[in-house]
Amino acid sequence: MDTNVSVLGLGRMGAALAGAFLAAGHRTTVWNRTAGTADTLVEKGAVKAGSAAEAVAASPVTVVCLASYEAVLEVLDPLAGELAGRSLVNLTSGSPPHARERAAWARRYAAEYLDGVVMTTSSSVGNGDHLVLYSGSRAAFDDHRDVLAALAEPVHLGTDAALASVYDTALLGLMCSTLTGWLHGVALVGADGPGGNETATAYTDVATRWMRSVGGLMTAYARQIDAGRYPGGDLTLDLHRSTTDLLVHASELRGVETGLPRLLRDLTGRATAAGHGDDSYARLIEFMRTDDQG
Amino acid sequence: MDTNVSVLGLGRMGAALAGAFLAAGHRTTVWNRTAGTADTLVEKGAVKAGSAAEAVAASPVTVVCLASYEAVLEVLDPLAGELAGRSLVNLTSGSPPHARERAAWARRYAAEYLDGVVMTTSSSVGNGDHLVLYSGSRAAFDDHRDVLAALAEPVHLGTDAALASVYDTALLGLMCSTLTGWLHGVALVGADGPGGNETATAYTDVATRWMRSVGGLMTAYARQIDAGRYPGGDLTLDLHRSTTDLLVHASELRGVETGLPRLLRDLTGRATAAGHGDDSYARLIEFMRTDDQG
Repeated sequence: MDTNVSVLGLGRMGAALAGAFLAAGHRTTVWNRTAGTADTLVEKGAVKAGSAAEAVAASPVTVVCLASYEAVLEVLDPLAGELAGRSLVNLTSGSPPHARERAAWARRYAAEYLDGVVMTTSSSVGNGDHLVLYSGSRAAFDDHRDVLAALAEPVHLGTDAALASVYDTALLGLMCSTLTGWLHGVALVGADGPGGNETATAYTDVATRWMRSVGGLMTAYARQIDAGRYPGGDLTLDLHRSTTDLLVHASELRGVETGLPRLLRDLTGRATAAGHGDDSYARLIEFMRTDDQG
Repeated sequence: MDTNVSVLGLGRMGAALAGAFLAAGHRTTVWNRTAGTADTLVEKGAVKAGSAAEAVAASPVTVVCLASYEAVLEVLDPLAGELAGRSLVNLTSGSPPHARERAAWARRYAAEYLDGVVMTTSSSVGNGDHLVLYSGSRAAFDDHRDVLAALAEPVHLGTDAALASVYDTALLGLMCSTLTGWLHGVALVGADGPGGNETATAYTDVATRWMRSVGGLMTAYARQIDAGRYPGGDLTLDLHRSTTDLLVHASELRGVETGLPRLLRDLTGRATAAGHGDDSYARLIEFMRTDDQG
Protein backbone atom coordinates (compact mmCIF):
# COMPACT_ATOMS: atom_id res chain seq x y z
CA MET A 1 0.00 0.00 0.00
CA ASP A 2 1.29 3.39 -1.03
CA THR A 3 1.56 5.72 1.94
CA ASN A 4 2.54 8.92 0.21
CA VAL A 5 0.28 11.80 1.12
CA SER A 6 0.27 15.50 0.23
CA VAL A 7 -1.12 18.38 2.24
CA LEU A 8 -2.18 21.71 0.70
CA GLY A 9 -2.50 24.49 3.25
CA LEU A 10 -0.35 24.77 6.36
CA GLY A 11 -2.40 26.92 8.66
CA ARG A 12 -2.70 25.75 12.24
CA MET A 13 -4.92 22.77 11.31
CA GLY A 14 -3.14 21.94 8.03
CA ALA A 15 0.23 21.89 9.80
CA ALA A 16 -1.22 19.63 12.50
CA LEU A 17 -2.52 17.23 9.83
CA ALA A 18 0.86 17.12 8.08
CA GLY A 19 2.58 16.62 11.44
CA ALA A 20 0.31 13.66 12.24
CA PHE A 21 1.04 12.04 8.85
CA LEU A 22 4.76 12.46 9.46
CA ALA A 23 4.50 11.09 12.98
CA ALA A 24 2.77 8.00 11.57
CA GLY A 25 5.69 7.45 9.17
CA HIS A 26 4.05 8.53 5.91
CA ARG A 27 6.06 10.28 3.19
CA THR A 28 4.40 13.68 3.38
CA THR A 29 4.63 16.41 0.77
CA VAL A 30 3.50 19.85 1.85
CA TRP A 31 2.64 23.13 0.17
CA ASN A 32 1.41 26.48 1.39
CA ARG A 33 0.49 29.65 -0.50
CA THR A 34 2.84 31.76 1.55
CA ALA A 35 6.43 30.63 1.88
CA GLY A 36 8.12 29.81 5.16
CA THR A 37 5.36 27.97 7.01
CA ALA A 38 6.60 24.59 5.70
CA ASP A 39 10.04 24.85 7.29
CA THR A 40 9.19 23.32 10.68
CA LEU A 41 7.56 20.39 8.91
CA VAL A 42 10.56 19.96 6.58
CA GLU A 43 12.73 19.68 9.68
CA LYS A 44 10.49 16.79 10.74
CA GLY A 45 10.96 15.09 7.38
CA ALA A 46 8.31 16.61 5.10
CA VAL A 47 9.02 17.27 1.45
CA LYS A 48 8.32 20.86 0.43
CA ALA A 49 6.64 21.17 -2.95
CA GLY A 50 7.33 24.19 -5.16
CA SER A 51 3.70 24.45 -6.25
CA ALA A 52 0.29 23.00 -5.50
CA ALA A 53 0.53 21.04 -8.77
CA GLU A 54 3.84 19.53 -7.70
CA ALA A 55 2.34 18.53 -4.34
CA VAL A 56 -0.68 16.87 -5.97
CA ALA A 57 1.61 14.99 -8.38
CA ALA A 58 3.68 13.60 -5.50
CA SER A 59 0.97 11.42 -3.88
CA PRO A 60 -2.12 9.40 -4.79
CA VAL A 61 -4.04 11.31 -2.12
CA THR A 62 -3.99 15.01 -1.36
CA VAL A 63 -5.48 16.51 1.77
CA VAL A 64 -6.69 20.10 1.36
CA CYS A 65 -7.01 22.35 4.38
CA LEU A 66 -7.23 26.00 3.38
CA ALA A 67 -8.67 29.10 5.01
CA SER A 68 -11.98 29.08 3.10
CA TYR A 69 -13.89 27.41 0.33
CA GLU A 70 -12.96 30.34 -1.95
CA ALA A 71 -9.30 29.53 -1.35
CA VAL A 72 -10.03 25.91 -2.33
CA LEU A 73 -11.43 27.09 -5.67
CA GLU A 74 -8.42 29.30 -6.32
CA VAL A 75 -5.91 26.56 -5.58
CA LEU A 76 -7.66 23.54 -7.12
CA ASP A 77 -9.33 24.90 -10.25
CA PRO A 78 -6.05 25.43 -12.12
CA LEU A 79 -5.04 21.82 -11.31
CA ALA A 80 -8.21 20.15 -12.54
CA GLY A 81 -6.51 18.55 -15.56
CA GLU A 82 -3.98 16.73 -13.38
CA LEU A 83 -6.40 15.04 -11.00
CA ALA A 84 -7.63 12.03 -12.98
CA GLY A 85 -7.33 8.89 -10.89
CA ARG A 86 -6.20 10.79 -7.80
CA SER A 87 -8.00 11.26 -4.51
CA LEU A 88 -8.77 14.65 -2.99
CA VAL A 89 -9.71 14.90 0.69
CA ASN A 90 -11.06 18.35 1.47
CA LEU A 91 -10.94 19.16 5.19
CA THR A 92 -11.50 22.89 4.65
CA SER A 93 -14.54 24.22 6.55
CA GLY A 94 -17.46 24.59 4.17
CA SER A 95 -21.19 24.22 3.78
CA PRO A 96 -23.15 21.24 2.40
CA PRO A 97 -23.63 23.00 -0.99
CA HIS A 98 -19.87 23.63 -1.16
CA ALA A 99 -19.24 19.92 -0.63
CA ARG A 100 -21.70 18.86 -3.34
CA GLU A 101 -20.33 21.45 -5.78
CA ARG A 102 -16.77 20.25 -5.28
CA ALA A 103 -17.80 16.59 -5.59
CA ALA A 104 -19.47 17.32 -8.95
CA TRP A 105 -16.38 19.23 -10.07
CA ALA A 106 -14.10 16.32 -9.10
CA ARG A 107 -16.31 13.87 -11.00
CA ARG A 108 -15.90 15.94 -14.16
CA TYR A 109 -12.14 15.51 -13.88
CA ALA A 110 -12.27 11.82 -12.91
CA ALA A 111 -10.92 12.48 -9.43
CA GLU A 112 -12.18 10.73 -6.29
CA TYR A 113 -13.51 13.31 -3.83
CA LEU A 114 -13.98 13.11 -0.08
CA ASP A 115 -15.29 15.95 2.00
CA GLY A 116 -14.42 15.82 5.67
CA VAL A 117 -14.55 17.54 9.03
CA VAL A 118 -12.00 17.23 11.80
CA MET A 119 -14.03 16.85 15.02
CA THR A 120 -11.32 18.15 17.31
CA THR A 121 -8.89 21.00 17.68
CA SER A 122 -5.56 21.16 15.85
CA SER A 123 -3.69 20.38 19.07
CA SER A 124 -5.52 17.02 19.39
CA VAL A 125 -5.00 15.86 15.80
CA GLY A 126 -3.18 12.53 15.83
CA ASN A 127 -5.03 11.45 18.95
CA GLY A 128 -7.03 8.30 18.17
CA ASP A 129 -9.75 9.21 20.68
CA HIS A 130 -11.18 11.78 18.29
CA LEU A 131 -13.06 11.53 15.00
CA VAL A 132 -12.64 12.76 11.47
CA LEU A 133 -15.87 12.38 9.51
CA TYR A 134 -15.77 11.80 5.74
CA SER A 135 -18.41 11.67 3.04
CA GLY A 136 -18.20 11.20 -0.70
CA SER A 137 -16.12 8.65 -2.62
CA ARG A 138 -16.15 5.31 -0.88
CA ALA A 139 -13.21 4.18 -3.04
CA ALA A 140 -11.04 7.08 -1.88
CA PHE A 141 -11.93 6.29 1.74
CA ASP A 142 -11.19 2.59 1.42
CA ASP A 143 -7.95 3.15 -0.52
CA HIS A 144 -6.57 5.71 1.94
CA ARG A 145 -8.19 4.78 5.20
CA ASP A 146 -4.89 3.63 6.70
CA VAL A 147 -3.26 6.96 5.88
CA LEU A 148 -6.24 8.94 7.19
CA ALA A 149 -6.17 6.92 10.42
CA ALA A 150 -3.03 8.89 11.34
CA LEU A 151 -5.24 11.94 12.02
CA ALA A 152 -8.00 10.43 14.19
CA GLU A 153 -10.51 7.63 13.87
CA PRO A 154 -11.80 7.86 10.27
CA VAL A 155 -15.56 7.43 9.78
CA HIS A 156 -17.22 7.24 6.35
CA LEU A 157 -20.76 8.58 6.57
CA GLY A 158 -21.99 7.88 3.06
CA THR A 159 -21.47 8.81 -0.58
CA ASP A 160 -23.32 12.15 -0.46
CA ALA A 161 -20.37 14.52 -0.04
CA ALA A 162 -22.54 16.96 1.95
CA LEU A 163 -23.05 14.55 4.85
CA ALA A 164 -19.85 15.39 6.72
CA SER A 165 -20.77 19.07 6.82
CA VAL A 166 -24.35 18.34 7.94
CA TYR A 167 -23.12 15.96 10.65
CA ASP A 168 -20.61 18.59 11.76
CA THR A 169 -23.36 21.13 12.39
CA ALA A 170 -25.62 18.56 14.07
CA LEU A 171 -22.85 17.23 16.34
CA LEU A 172 -21.67 20.71 17.34
CA GLY A 173 -25.30 21.47 18.23
CA LEU A 174 -25.36 18.31 20.35
CA MET A 175 -22.15 19.44 22.03
CA CYS A 176 -23.50 22.92 22.84
CA SER A 177 -26.80 21.47 24.11
CA THR A 178 -24.96 19.00 26.32
CA LEU A 179 -22.46 21.53 27.64
CA THR A 180 -25.24 24.04 28.37
CA GLY A 181 -27.26 21.39 30.24
CA TRP A 182 -24.11 20.45 32.12
CA LEU A 183 -23.32 24.10 33.03
CA HIS A 184 -26.90 24.54 34.20
CA GLY A 185 -26.46 21.53 36.48
CA VAL A 186 -23.15 22.88 37.79
CA ALA A 187 -24.96 26.09 38.78
CA LEU A 188 -27.90 24.17 40.21
CA VAL A 189 -25.80 22.05 42.56
CA GLY A 190 -24.07 25.25 43.64
CA ALA A 191 -20.73 24.39 42.17
CA ASP A 192 -20.40 27.47 40.01
CA GLY A 193 -17.25 29.11 41.16
CA PRO A 194 -14.49 28.98 43.71
CA GLY A 195 -15.75 28.90 47.28
CA GLY A 196 -18.87 26.79 46.77
CA ASN A 197 -19.31 23.68 48.87
CA GLU A 198 -19.56 21.48 45.82
CA THR A 199 -16.83 21.68 43.22
CA ALA A 200 -17.66 21.58 39.53
CA THR A 201 -15.17 18.72 39.30
CA ALA A 202 -17.09 16.66 41.88
CA TYR A 203 -20.37 17.19 40.04
CA THR A 204 -18.76 16.46 36.68
CA ASP A 205 -17.25 13.21 37.88
CA VAL A 206 -20.80 11.98 38.51
CA ALA A 207 -22.21 13.69 35.42
CA THR A 208 -19.77 12.01 33.04
CA ARG A 209 -20.64 8.60 34.53
CA TRP A 210 -24.34 9.46 34.18
CA MET A 211 -23.74 10.28 30.52
CA ARG A 212 -23.07 6.59 29.89
CA SER A 213 -26.70 5.90 30.79
CA VAL A 214 -27.80 8.80 28.58
CA GLY A 215 -25.74 7.35 25.72
CA GLY A 216 -27.53 4.03 26.22
CA LEU A 217 -30.87 5.83 25.91
CA MET A 218 -29.76 7.55 22.72
CA THR A 219 -28.91 4.18 21.17
CA ALA A 220 -32.20 2.60 22.27
CA TYR A 221 -34.25 5.62 21.17
CA ALA A 222 -32.54 5.75 17.76
CA ARG A 223 -33.95 2.29 17.09
CA GLN A 224 -37.39 3.55 18.15
CA ILE A 225 -37.15 6.47 15.71
CA ASP A 226 -36.10 4.18 12.85
CA ALA A 227 -39.06 1.93 13.68
CA GLY A 228 -41.48 4.85 14.12
CA ARG A 229 -42.66 3.46 17.50
CA TYR A 230 -41.94 4.98 20.92
CA PRO A 231 -42.82 2.69 23.83
CA GLY A 232 -42.04 4.53 27.07
CA GLY A 233 -41.69 1.66 29.51
CA ASP A 234 -40.70 3.03 32.93
CA LEU A 235 -39.34 6.28 31.52
CA THR A 236 -42.25 8.18 30.03
CA LEU A 237 -42.83 11.71 28.77
CA ASP A 238 -45.26 12.18 31.68
CA LEU A 239 -42.31 11.58 33.99
CA HIS A 240 -40.05 13.90 31.98
CA ARG A 241 -42.80 16.51 32.02
CA SER A 242 -42.80 16.55 35.83
CA THR A 243 -39.00 16.37 35.98
CA THR A 244 -38.68 19.44 33.77
CA ASP A 245 -41.31 21.20 35.90
CA LEU A 246 -39.16 20.43 38.95
CA LEU A 247 -36.12 21.70 37.05
CA VAL A 248 -37.81 25.04 36.37
CA HIS A 249 -38.85 25.39 40.02
CA ALA A 250 -35.45 24.37 41.37
CA SER A 251 -33.78 26.87 39.00
CA GLU A 252 -36.07 29.67 40.16
CA LEU A 253 -35.45 28.81 43.82
CA ARG A 254 -31.70 28.79 43.37
CA GLY A 255 -31.43 31.84 41.10
CA VAL A 256 -30.32 29.80 38.10
CA GLU A 257 -31.24 30.66 34.49
CA THR A 258 -34.60 29.20 33.49
CA GLY A 259 -34.36 29.54 29.70
CA LEU A 260 -33.21 25.99 29.03
CA PRO A 261 -35.48 24.32 31.64
CA ARG A 262 -38.49 26.23 30.26
CA LEU A 263 -37.66 25.12 26.72
CA LEU A 264 -37.47 21.50 27.89
CA ARG A 265 -40.71 21.85 29.87
CA ASP A 266 -42.52 23.38 26.90
CA LEU A 267 -41.31 20.67 24.57
CA THR A 268 -42.31 17.77 26.82
CA GLY A 269 -45.53 19.61 27.67
CA ARG A 270 -46.51 19.89 24.01
CA ALA A 271 -46.03 16.15 23.56
CA THR A 272 -47.96 15.16 26.68
CA ALA A 273 -50.76 17.61 25.76
CA ALA A 274 -50.92 15.85 22.38
CA GLY A 275 -51.56 12.56 24.19
CA HIS A 276 -48.06 11.06 24.11
CA GLY A 277 -47.52 10.95 27.90
CA ASP A 278 -46.92 7.19 27.95
CA ASP A 279 -44.33 7.34 25.19
CA SER A 280 -40.57 7.68 25.51
CA TYR A 281 -38.55 10.85 24.98
CA ALA A 282 -37.91 9.64 21.41
CA ARG A 283 -41.49 10.64 20.50
CA LEU A 284 -40.28 14.26 20.64
CA ILE A 285 -38.62 13.71 17.26
CA GLU A 286 -42.06 14.42 15.83
CA PHE A 287 -41.93 17.87 17.45
CA MET A 288 -38.58 18.76 15.90
CA ARG A 289 -40.11 19.82 12.59
CA THR A 290 -41.52 23.33 12.24
CA ASP A 291 -44.13 21.94 9.82
CA ASP A 292 -45.02 18.83 11.82
CA GLN A 293 -46.56 18.93 15.29
CA GLY A 294 -46.87 15.17 15.91
CA MET B 1 -19.61 -8.16 57.62
CA ASP B 2 -23.32 -8.45 58.22
CA THR B 3 -25.25 -8.61 54.97
CA ASN B 4 -28.79 -8.57 56.29
CA VAL B 5 -30.90 -5.89 54.68
CA SER B 6 -34.56 -4.89 54.97
CA VAL B 7 -36.75 -3.21 52.40
CA LEU B 8 -39.85 -1.16 53.26
CA GLY B 9 -42.15 -0.62 50.31
CA LEU B 10 -42.59 -3.11 47.48
CA GLY B 11 -43.89 -1.01 44.64
CA ARG B 12 -42.26 -1.53 41.29
CA MET B 13 -38.96 0.06 42.38
CA GLY B 14 -38.98 -1.35 45.92
CA ALA B 15 -39.59 -4.87 44.62
CA ALA B 16 -36.74 -4.42 42.15
CA LEU B 17 -34.41 -3.29 44.96
CA ALA B 18 -35.34 -6.29 47.11
CA GLY B 19 -34.91 -8.59 44.12
CA ALA B 20 -31.41 -7.21 43.49
CA PHE B 21 -30.42 -7.75 47.15
CA LEU B 22 -31.69 -11.33 46.93
CA ALA B 23 -29.87 -11.94 43.65
CA ALA B 24 -26.65 -10.78 45.30
CA GLY B 25 -27.15 -13.32 48.09
CA HIS B 26 -28.14 -11.00 50.93
CA ARG B 27 -30.60 -12.10 53.59
CA THR B 28 -33.46 -9.76 52.68
CA THR B 29 -36.44 -8.94 54.88
CA VAL B 30 -39.36 -7.25 53.13
CA TRP B 31 -42.49 -5.41 54.20
CA ASN B 32 -45.26 -3.65 52.34
CA ARG B 33 -48.30 -1.74 53.61
CA THR B 34 -50.67 -3.84 51.56
CA ALA B 35 -50.42 -7.60 51.84
CA GLY B 36 -49.67 -9.94 48.95
CA THR B 37 -47.01 -7.98 47.09
CA ALA B 38 -44.23 -9.75 49.02
CA ASP B 39 -45.14 -13.23 47.82
CA THR B 40 -43.05 -13.29 44.64
CA LEU B 41 -40.05 -12.10 46.63
CA VAL B 42 -40.67 -14.72 49.33
CA GLU B 43 -40.55 -17.37 46.61
CA LYS B 44 -37.09 -16.03 45.74
CA GLY B 45 -35.98 -16.34 49.36
CA ALA B 46 -37.06 -13.10 51.02
CA VAL B 47 -38.30 -13.07 54.61
CA LYS B 48 -41.68 -11.43 54.96
CA ALA B 49 -41.97 -9.20 58.03
CA GLY B 50 -45.30 -8.83 59.80
CA SER B 51 -44.77 -5.12 60.40
CA ALA B 52 -42.44 -2.28 59.46
CA ALA B 53 -41.01 -2.43 62.99
CA GLU B 54 -40.26 -6.13 62.59
CA ALA B 55 -38.53 -5.45 59.25
CA VAL B 56 -36.38 -2.68 60.75
CA ALA B 57 -35.43 -4.93 63.67
CA ALA B 58 -34.26 -7.69 61.31
CA SER B 59 -31.30 -5.87 59.74
CA PRO B 60 -28.70 -3.22 60.53
CA VAL B 61 -29.73 -1.35 57.39
CA THR B 62 -33.22 -0.66 56.09
CA VAL B 63 -33.93 0.63 52.61
CA VAL B 64 -37.12 2.67 52.33
CA CYS B 65 -38.85 3.04 48.96
CA LEU B 66 -42.42 4.24 49.37
CA ALA B 67 -44.85 6.09 47.12
CA SER B 68 -44.25 9.55 48.60
CA TYR B 69 -42.48 11.45 51.33
CA GLU B 70 -45.79 11.59 53.23
CA ALA B 71 -45.86 7.80 53.24
CA VAL B 72 -42.32 7.80 54.65
CA LEU B 73 -43.51 9.96 57.57
CA GLU B 74 -46.46 7.66 58.25
CA VAL B 75 -44.35 4.52 58.24
CA LEU B 76 -41.19 5.75 59.97
CA ASP B 77 -42.45 8.16 62.63
CA PRO B 78 -43.98 5.41 64.79
CA LEU B 79 -40.66 3.50 64.65
CA ALA B 80 -38.43 6.35 65.75
CA GLY B 81 -37.69 4.80 69.15
CA GLU B 82 -36.31 1.62 67.59
CA LEU B 83 -33.81 3.20 65.23
CA ALA B 84 -30.84 3.99 67.48
CA GLY B 85 -27.64 2.66 65.96
CA ARG B 86 -29.39 1.50 62.80
CA SER B 87 -29.01 2.82 59.25
CA LEU B 88 -31.88 4.11 57.17
CA VAL B 89 -31.46 4.50 53.42
CA ASN B 90 -34.34 6.47 51.95
CA LEU B 91 -34.72 5.95 48.19
CA THR B 92 -38.22 7.43 48.09
CA SER B 93 -38.52 10.36 45.64
CA GLY B 94 -38.46 13.62 47.56
CA SER B 95 -37.21 17.17 47.55
CA PRO B 96 -34.01 18.60 49.11
CA PRO B 97 -36.00 20.00 52.10
CA HIS B 98 -37.55 16.54 52.65
CA ALA B 99 -34.08 15.01 52.79
CA ARG B 100 -32.77 17.57 55.27
CA GLU B 101 -35.88 17.22 57.44
CA ARG B 102 -35.55 13.45 57.58
CA ALA B 103 -31.82 13.66 58.31
CA ALA B 104 -32.51 15.96 61.29
CA TRP B 105 -35.24 13.59 62.47
CA ALA B 106 -32.89 10.59 62.26
CA ARG B 107 -30.20 12.46 64.21
CA ARG B 108 -32.67 13.02 67.05
CA TYR B 109 -33.16 9.25 67.31
CA ALA B 110 -29.46 8.39 66.88
CA ALA B 111 -30.04 6.69 63.53
CA GLU B 112 -27.67 6.99 60.59
CA TYR B 113 -29.54 8.49 57.62
CA LEU B 114 -28.77 8.31 53.90
CA ASP B 115 -30.94 9.89 51.27
CA GLY B 116 -30.59 8.46 47.81
CA VAL B 117 -31.81 8.44 44.23
CA VAL B 118 -31.82 5.49 41.87
CA MET B 119 -30.59 6.85 38.53
CA THR B 120 -32.22 4.20 36.41
CA THR B 121 -35.53 2.45 35.90
CA SER B 122 -36.70 -0.42 38.08
CA SER B 123 -36.05 -2.90 35.28
CA SER B 124 -32.34 -1.96 35.24
CA VAL B 125 -31.77 -2.16 39.00
CA GLY B 126 -29.02 -4.68 39.69
CA ASN B 127 -27.15 -3.61 36.58
CA GLY B 128 -23.72 -2.30 37.58
CA ASP B 129 -23.61 0.15 34.64
CA HIS B 130 -26.02 2.46 36.44
CA LEU B 131 -25.69 4.71 39.47
CA VAL B 132 -27.41 5.13 42.80
CA LEU B 133 -26.47 8.46 44.38
CA TYR B 134 -26.39 8.82 48.17
CA SER B 135 -25.92 11.75 50.52
CA GLY B 136 -25.97 12.02 54.28
CA SER B 137 -24.26 9.75 56.81
CA ARG B 138 -20.82 8.75 55.60
CA ALA B 139 -20.73 5.99 58.25
CA ALA B 140 -23.91 4.39 56.95
CA PHE B 141 -22.52 4.50 53.42
CA ASP B 142 -19.17 3.00 54.39
CA ASP B 143 -20.73 0.32 56.59
CA HIS B 144 -23.25 -0.82 53.98
CA ARG B 145 -21.57 0.02 50.71
CA ASP B 146 -21.11 -3.64 49.81
CA VAL B 147 -24.81 -4.33 50.30
CA LEU B 148 -25.82 -1.22 48.36
CA ALA B 149 -23.53 -2.26 45.51
CA ALA B 150 -26.08 -4.96 44.69
CA LEU B 151 -28.38 -2.24 43.29
CA ALA B 152 -26.00 -0.29 41.06
CA GLU B 153 -22.72 1.56 41.49
CA PRO B 154 -23.05 3.40 44.83
CA VAL B 155 -21.76 6.98 44.89
CA HIS B 156 -21.57 9.07 48.09
CA LEU B 157 -21.95 12.76 47.24
CA GLY B 158 -21.41 14.31 50.65
CA THR B 159 -22.82 14.60 54.13
CA ASP B 160 -25.57 17.12 53.27
CA ALA B 161 -28.55 14.77 52.87
CA ALA B 162 -30.12 17.10 50.27
CA LEU B 163 -27.33 16.59 47.75
CA ALA B 164 -28.71 13.41 46.18
CA SER B 165 -32.01 15.12 45.40
CA VAL B 166 -30.30 18.21 43.98
CA TYR B 167 -28.00 16.06 41.84
CA ASP B 168 -31.02 14.09 40.65
CA THR B 169 -32.69 17.22 39.32
CA ALA B 170 -29.47 18.53 37.79
CA LEU B 171 -28.61 15.22 36.11
CA LEU B 172 -32.12 14.73 34.74
CA GLY B 173 -31.83 18.25 33.30
CA LEU B 174 -28.54 17.26 31.70
CA MET B 175 -30.23 14.17 30.28
CA CYS B 176 -33.12 16.14 28.78
CA SER B 177 -30.74 18.79 27.35
CA THR B 178 -28.56 16.12 25.79
CA LEU B 179 -31.47 14.09 24.41
CA THR B 180 -33.09 17.22 22.97
CA GLY B 181 -29.83 18.26 21.31
CA TRP B 182 -29.49 14.73 19.97
CA LEU B 183 -33.06 14.67 18.61
CA HIS B 184 -32.46 18.04 16.97
CA GLY B 185 -29.42 16.55 15.25
CA VAL B 186 -31.37 13.48 14.15
CA ALA B 187 -33.88 15.81 12.47
CA LEU B 188 -31.14 17.98 11.01
CA VAL B 189 -29.34 15.12 9.26
CA GLY B 190 -32.70 14.01 7.91
CA ALA B 191 -32.91 10.81 9.90
CA ASP B 192 -36.21 11.57 11.58
CA GLY B 193 -38.44 8.75 10.57
CA PRO B 194 -38.67 5.68 8.41
CA GLY B 195 -37.83 6.29 4.77
CA GLY B 196 -35.10 8.89 5.24
CA ASN B 197 -31.74 8.26 3.60
CA GLU B 198 -29.96 8.46 6.92
CA THR B 199 -31.14 6.30 9.78
CA ALA B 200 -31.27 7.63 13.31
CA THR B 201 -29.16 4.62 14.26
CA ALA B 202 -26.40 5.60 11.83
CA TYR B 203 -26.33 9.15 13.15
CA THR B 204 -26.42 7.96 16.75
CA ASP B 205 -23.53 5.59 16.26
CA VAL B 206 -21.39 8.62 15.41
CA ALA B 207 -23.06 10.84 18.02
CA THR B 208 -22.33 8.47 20.90
CA ARG B 209 -18.67 8.29 19.86
CA TRP B 210 -18.62 12.09 19.63
CA MET B 211 -20.00 12.28 23.16
CA ARG B 212 -16.70 10.87 24.44
CA SER B 213 -15.03 14.07 23.21
CA VAL B 214 -17.81 16.14 24.79
CA GLY B 215 -17.27 14.29 28.07
CA GLY B 216 -13.57 15.15 27.87
CA LEU B 217 -14.50 18.82 27.50
CA MET B 218 -16.82 18.65 30.51
CA THR B 219 -13.99 17.30 32.64
CA ALA B 220 -11.52 19.92 31.40
CA TYR B 221 -14.04 22.76 31.77
CA ALA B 222 -15.00 21.69 35.31
CA ARG B 223 -11.40 22.34 36.32
CA GLN B 224 -11.62 25.78 34.68
CA ILE B 225 -14.78 26.59 36.65
CA ASP B 226 -13.19 25.51 39.93
CA ALA B 227 -10.19 27.69 39.11
CA GLY B 228 -12.34 30.62 37.92
CA ARG B 229 -10.30 30.93 34.70
CA TYR B 230 -11.55 30.03 31.19
CA PRO B 231 -8.77 29.91 28.58
CA GLY B 232 -10.35 29.11 25.21
CA GLY B 233 -7.36 27.73 23.32
CA ASP B 234 -8.51 26.55 19.88
CA LEU B 235 -12.16 26.23 20.92
CA THR B 236 -13.42 29.69 21.73
CA LEU B 237 -16.81 31.24 22.36
CA ASP B 238 -16.32 33.25 19.15
CA LEU B 239 -16.19 29.91 17.33
CA HIS B 240 -19.24 28.57 19.21
CA ARG B 241 -21.07 31.82 18.44
CA SER B 242 -20.63 31.23 14.70
CA THR B 243 -21.39 27.51 15.04
CA THR B 244 -24.68 28.25 16.77
CA ASP B 245 -25.45 30.86 14.09
CA LEU B 246 -24.87 28.15 11.48
CA LEU B 247 -27.08 25.80 13.52
CA VAL B 248 -29.97 28.29 13.46
CA HIS B 249 -29.60 28.82 9.70
CA ALA B 250 -29.31 25.09 8.94
CA SER B 251 -32.40 24.43 11.06
CA GLU B 252 -34.40 27.10 9.22
CA LEU B 253 -33.27 25.75 5.85
CA ARG B 254 -34.26 22.19 6.75
CA GLY B 255 -37.52 22.97 8.52
CA VAL B 256 -36.19 21.92 11.91
CA GLU B 257 -37.21 23.58 15.20
CA THR B 258 -35.09 26.62 16.01
CA GLY B 259 -35.93 27.06 19.72
CA LEU B 260 -32.90 25.22 21.06
CA PRO B 261 -30.42 26.62 18.48
CA ARG B 262 -31.66 30.17 19.18
CA LEU B 263 -31.24 29.68 22.92
CA LEU B 264 -27.66 28.46 22.35
CA ARG B 265 -26.95 31.35 19.98
CA ASP B 266 -28.33 33.92 22.41
CA LEU B 267 -26.31 32.48 25.29
CA THR B 268 -23.01 32.43 23.38
CA GLY B 269 -23.88 35.83 21.88
CA ARG B 270 -24.33 37.41 25.32
CA ALA B 271 -20.93 36.14 26.39
CA THR B 272 -19.12 37.28 23.25
CA ALA B 273 -20.87 40.67 23.44
CA ALA B 274 -19.56 40.95 27.01
CA GLY B 275 -16.02 40.54 25.67
CA HIS B 276 -15.47 36.83 26.39
CA GLY B 277 -15.04 35.71 22.77
CA ASP B 278 -11.57 34.27 23.35
CA ASP B 279 -12.69 32.23 26.35
CA SER B 280 -13.91 28.65 26.45
CA TYR B 281 -17.54 27.50 26.73
CA ALA B 282 -16.95 27.17 30.48
CA ARG B 283 -17.12 30.98 30.80
CA LEU B 284 -20.90 30.63 30.24
CA ILE B 285 -21.19 29.43 33.84
CA GLU B 286 -21.18 33.14 34.71
CA PHE B 287 -24.34 33.54 32.62
CA MET B 288 -26.19 30.75 34.41
CA ARG B 289 -27.23 32.97 37.31
CA THR B 290 -30.28 35.19 36.92
CA ASP B 291 -28.59 37.76 39.18
CA ASP B 292 -25.15 37.60 37.61
CA GLN B 293 -24.45 38.58 34.02
CA GLY B 294 -20.71 37.88 33.86
